[in-house]
Amino acid sequence: MNAVLIYSGGMDSTTLLYKYRKEISLAVTFTYGARQDKEQTDCAVKNCKILGIKHLIIPLDFIGKYFDSSILEGGAEIPHQDYDADNMKSTVVPFRNGIMLSVAAGLAENYGLDTVLIANHAGDHAIYPDCRPGFIEAMDGAISQGTYENIRLLSPFCNMTKRQIALEGRSLGVPFQDTYSCYEGRHIHCGTCATCRERKEALEGFDPTKYED
Amino acid sequence: MNAVLIYSGGMDSTTLLYKYRKEISLAVTFTYGARQDKEQTDCAVKNCKILGIKHLIIPLDFIGKYFDSSILEGGAEIPHQDYDADNMKSTVVPFRNGIMLSVAAGLAENYGLDTVLIANHAGDHAIYPDCRPGFIEAMDGAISQGTYENIRLLSPFCNMTKRQIALEGRSLGVPFQDTYSCYEGRHIHCGTCATCRERKEALEGFDPTKYED
Repeated sequence: MNAVLIYSGGMDSTTLLYKYRKEISLAVTFTYGARQDKEQTDCAVKNCKILGIKHLIIPLDFIGKYFDSSILEGGAEIPHQDYDADNMKSTVVPFRNGIMLSVAAGLAENYGLDTVLIANHAGDHAIYPDCRPGFIEAMDGAISQGTYENIRLLSPFCNMTKRQIALEGRSLGVPFQDTYSCYEGRHIHCGTCATCRERKEALEGFDPTKYED
Repeated sequence: MNAVLIYSGGMDSTTLLYKYRKEISLAVTFTYGARQDKEQTDCAVKNCKILGIKHLIIPLDFIGKYFDSSILEGGAEIPHQDYDADNMKSTVVPFRNGIMLSVAAGLAENYGLDTVLIANHAGDHAIYPDCRPGFIEAMDGAISQGTYENIRLLSPFCNMTKRQIALEGRSLGVPFQDTYSCYEGRHIHCGTCATCRERKEALEGFDPTKYED
């Protein structure tokens, strides 16, 4: 496998970066006007540098300009309750994974790579249609059919919980202190937004994160 | 149907714009560092203005920056022979339709539209994997699965020749003089690049285009 990884700098994709560090030729971070862009990108840069993996940062400015989502700068208030469907729907960025996967597929074809890796997981299925197994399967078909070299899409965490990913990350030696999740985007994790709550649960017992609360 | 159209300003997508003018709520033109960006976009702006259709121009700068193709500024020489597979492969922009369709799907979901329209046609199948029926079908599945409202992808010209599209355009009153094809990107069509040759054949008998040759 010779892969491009969609790499946010969060804990899931950093675990995937470590898991396939020998087979990832390129990691790509997309910035799109999210409040967390800067903190996540700083983590992504740091981890790619440590592992010696080529890293691109690609701005998708049209998302911040035209799309509505609470996680974007200038969007509605971030939900600070549990990570359930009702609270979380405002955080959807329409078809974000489809967009990132398509760009990554183009990069893979351009650079002669054979696989696109993404770190979606089971906890996202309820809220984000473009994190579900059915989407991943269909998108794999689209990428394979739409490229000369029949590039494949691989989603190794698709049916794992975030806790299972965290445990795998721990065994791989992932530096979770250099990963970032918070939707608020301040330097210190708020600890109370929906994604901080999810992060705390996943890392319970070995969480190196400093939280504001 | 309440659709977003991927609208280059070429003769095929302008014909689609005219065909579904009552059902298209949004047309989107992507610029990506192609030599023809300016001339095509000028045509797209003009036709959307005439028909009163909302129009967005979205730059995808990463394509010009990272992708290799002869149709991009600074790329290899444009092929000036017939429109066959060997000559044309240099003009491929990897997974371009996948990228444009994904962005359009995100816009559709964001703006409450139900359909993405694209004007790929049978003449492109040999050269461009992301113009083939199998890709369109798979991508339709990915867009439907990856959006809350199960947005659909519609490709009305997928199995038509460019000549058939031209004939349909003529019957719809499409102003072909305000459409642009040439890969060279100068104000006047060169008349000899592969896509100018294809255009001439399609419009034979009613071609209002001025060519350099």
